[in-house]
Amino acid sequence: MKKALQEAEMAFEKNEVPVGAVIVVDNQIIARAHNLTELLNDVTAHAEMQAITAAANFLGGKYLTGCTLYVTLEPCQMCAGALYWSQISKVVFAARDENRGFIKMGTQLHPKTVVQGGVLETEAEALLKRFFIEKRNLN
Amino acid sequence: MKKALQEAEMAFEKNEVPVGAVIVVDNQIIARAHNLTELLNDVTAHAEMQAITAAANFLGGKYLTGCTLYVTLEPCQMCAGALYWSQISKVVFAARDENRGFIKMGTQLHPKTVVQGGVLETEAEALLKRFFIEKRNLN
Repeated sequence: MKKALQEAEMAFEKNEVPVGAVIVVDNQIIARAHNLTELLNDVTAHAEMQAITAAANFLGGKYLTGCTLYVTLEPCQMCAGALYWSQISKVVFAARDENRGFIKMGTQLHPKTVVQGGVLETEAEALLKRFFIEKRNLN
Repeated sequence: MKKALQEAEMAFEKNEVPVGAVIVVDNQIIARAHNLTELLNDVTAHAEMQAITAAANFLGGKYLTGCTLYVTLEPCQMCAGALYWSQISKVVFAARDENRGFIKMGTQLHPKTVVQGGVLETEAEALLKRFFIEKRNLN
């Protein structure tokens, strides 16, 4: 999750909502990404979506069984829907998204996917809060 | 929707689940795409996702207000989640997906998005059925 937080900081520096993600298999990072929705003008460019694409590309297959996603914010409907198709084994997130997170929205993951929340939650939340405070002060 | 069906036929010819999508604004098609999940080894490569990215690229902004998506199969959780973020004005689909469609799954679209189903439903369903029958016969 520390590596995912580093990715989130890279998003912050680019004036993007600071969310970062890494995908790990056999203790090896095979994908790292951060939110680029503003830079790419693309609502689909969430950190998780890019990480899923990159991991599948690395593995040479579209299924991510055996992989773990570490992401600094609870995935949204779109990202959870992509994780469903990927059949990823584990999803670990840091901060909870009480409004638009997949848990509140009832988005279904694959039945084999294990979910864990709250890892480095304080750090991830602090970064998000700092981002939105700076944004507010600029406007 | 006829143009979306043409896209679905292109997917069929590439041995992909035949789903096609176009995005229209002011009676002009600004994006067309078909499912490429097998060819790209990427669960995120649904027709709708590619169309959303292409339309935003065309418009130079990530929001698709004023746009209509025509898609030959009811969107899944992932695609509906992306449509939510895009704030698209209208979603028109052909065939219903009773198992994995966003209606059954309860995925939330943007409150301003209007949904219409069943346009050229018979044609879209026939193409999907033909695809799965051919698949079964090959295995």
